[in-house]
Amino acid sequence: MSDDPTHSDPDKYKVAFENDRVRVLEYLDHPGDQTTEHAHPDSVMYTLSSFRRRLYGADGDSRDVEIEAGTTGWLPAQIHAGHNIGNSDTHVIFVELKQPGVASHRPGPLGPALA
Amino acid sequence: MSDDPTHSDPDKYKVAFENDRVRVLEYLDHPGDQTTEHAHPDSVMYTLSSFRRRLYGADGDSRDVEIEAGTTGWLPAQIHAGHNIGNSDTHVIFVELKQPGVASHRPGPLGPALA
Repeated sequence: MSDDPTHSDPDKYKVAFENDRVRVLEYLDHPGDQTTEHAHPDSVMYTLSSFRRRLYGADGDSRDVEIEAGTTGWLPAQIHAGHNIGNSDTHVIFVELKQPGVASHRPGPLGPALA
Repeated sequence: MSDDPTHSDPDKYKVAFENDRVRVLEYLDHPGDQTTEHAHPDSVMYTLSSFRRRLYGADGDSRDVEIEAGTTGWLPAQIHAGHNIGNSDTHVIFVELKQPGVASHRPGPLGPALA
């Protein structure tokens, strides 16, 4: 079942800040780690490490992503699970937007849209 | 005159990402640097360095802040100028929210509200 990532993977997702507009999550895992399927709202991502991951969508599709530290991306609302298939930790800040936007009604890519 | 920080201080504020929901700015300065007065919308801040700054409000008030690297804060919409009064660079990611919220109508503190 899809769920809040702080419930599906509480060892990896920590709430860094929350108010009525946003919730900020800090994600940290290690090579080989996998997450349980979970849901993200429209979010900004900022990468604190360079990493390589395989993302699995709810429809059985998958996508490999390799992202450098210091990258800002947009994660459109989606359900997915992730697998750290690289040799480095994945360390990411997610700024979740609580106000839905028009953009969230469009189908988006699996994983982030990078700047 | 108050202004967009990418106009008032284009050498320090860079646009890292923008869509219809958010604009993400990367701020970088060095010890002794000062900014021209500028306006921020409601924003999430994430600090990439530890730093010490003196903030000057539009009303002539000021506040010194000392913040550790890896801190998430909420910057309520405000007009201010800043002065790096420490011995380290100030390096911060700002996620500016384009949708106004109820919170932005409340008077907020000068500088960030830290988690």
